[in-house]
Amino acid sequence: MNPVDKYNQRAKKINSLLCVGLDSDFSKIPEHFLKMEFPQFEFNKWIIEETNEYTAAYKPNSAFYEARGDKGIKELKMTMEYLTKNYPDIFTILDAKRADIGNTNNGYVSAIFDWLNFDAITLHPYLGEEALKPFLDRKQKASIILCRTSNIGASEIQDLMVDSKPIWQIVAEKVAKVWNKNNNCMLVVGATYPKEMKKIREVSGDITLLVPGIGMQGGDLEAVMKAGINSFGFGLIINSSRGIIFTENPKEEAKKLCEEIREFMI
Amino acid sequence: MNPVDKYNQRAKKINSLLCVGLDSDFSKIPEHFLKMEFPQFEFNKWIIEETNEYTAAYKPNSAFYEARGDKGIKELKMTMEYLTKNYPDIFTILDAKRADIGNTNNGYVSAIFDWLNFDAITLHPYLGEEALKPFLDRKQKASIILCRTSNIGASEIQDLMVDSKPIWQIVAEKVAKVWNKNNNCMLVVGATYPKEMKKIREVSGDITLLVPGIGMQGGDLEAVMKAGINSFGFGLIINSSRGIIFTENPKEEAKKLCEEIREFMI
Repeated sequence: MNPVDKYNQRAKKINSLLCVGLDSDFSKIPEHFLKMEFPQFEFNKWIIEETNEYTAAYKPNSAFYEARGDKGIKELKMTMEYLTKNYPDIFTILDAKRADIGNTNNGYVSAIFDWLNFDAITLHPYLGEEALKPFLDRKQKASIILCRTSNIGASEIQDLMVDSKPIWQIVAEKVAKVWNKNNNCMLVVGATYPKEMKKIREVSGDITLLVPGIGMQGGDLEAVMKAGINSFGFGLIINSSRGIIFTENPKEEAKKLCEEIREFMI
Repeated sequence: MNPVDKYNQRAKKINSLLCVGLDSDFSKIPEHFLKMEFPQFEFNKWIIEETNEYTAAYKPNSAFYEARGDKGIKELKMTMEYLTKNYPDIFTILDAKRADIGNTNNGYVSAIFDWLNFDAITLHPYLGEEALKPFLDRKQKASIILCRTSNIGASEIQDLMVDSKPIWQIVAEKVAKVWNKNNNCMLVVGATYPKEMKKIREVSGDITLLVPGIGMQGGDLEAVMKAGINSFGFGLIINSSRGIIFTENPKEEAKKLCEEIREFMI
């Protein structure tokens, strides 16, 4: 199945655009999980059980697993096996921000799309479309290209002006019009930049935007929904990580954000 | 020790700028290693024993290890333990091409600088200096920023012109003049673009350049050495991967390239 269709089907089925970021930082996991054999996996399993009814996508950030070496990678794999078995219709994204030259990317493709079985990966645009071909050629997997990131210093490179257009706009246009031959591209656009998001929606048609930065990073949901929703009333993957998983009641927080999102869905 | 000093000391000691790329693609490793318990590690150990006398730096590309999941990561760790124990003065680079937002990078810092104990990592510039702070703040570790990559499609984004300068030049200037506060930055500049390398040397002072693309990718050693050597007669890390490790006689190939490099050293 086309990965954008997979996401949209799940989003429609549960009427939600919520993505829960499984950024399961080992130093922040509640203490009772740390006594278990596979703490990150057990924590994720609990979060998944608490939040899945509101969740269209899960997005672990690879850094929090790699930080624990081979143990963390194994628990990421266990998390994906659990998700694939129990919730196969939920969209899964590895936030790995990769991009190497052509053939070398095959290693990441094998690891992330095949061995771990993710539906999607986040990628840097700096090496161009030719380098990313091993990802883009996988028609049933989504390549989510960094366009306008949510961090404070994003402007340093991304706002450089090329012929009166900032680089983030050029990336948005290239991805939407050139790289998206298999209809399997998406863009990362931080919730902290709704003005830029509005422009990106204008120049990139109905492409799906992965939106980090809601919650702890200060992004405003209403501004994001108004700027980013596409002509089908979808086209957004609204991620919250710490604002859900490290709270007293992850289920309540997921439900709350999901309901807020629903208010702005058509 | 400052990481640039560590590299320079090794380079001076053995009179070589050679970096051997431990791109130990599982599908290309000689068959007799595949029967061993830790094939990638055993292959690397053999390559290290054959090539170390000519080698100033080793550079595994993370993709080839991640492709094997937790097993590959474990064998990368074993490779680093072997190197650190037996050849502690050889400079080590993980070619991982990472870059996430601020705090998330701490996971990569822990994994790559602490757990694996590499001296250096390669990084994407797209998120800016602020995002890379967790890497840049590590004074004894080198941050090697992608500037002009060796792939055919590198120009698509990197040649975009900002106020009559290509983006790769802006990245070179920013890294050399602004990001390099701890004198621990280097730049990646592909051997396939010697004209660009000459300009990068001009605008970035004596900064060290990591140069992939010699050998199989078609880069010309003489052109690289003339364009890239710095005012101390060093400032280059000349990488060859497949052109050494997957040949009949890796020792001979390493020796040959090392001797060719020496002809152009001051």
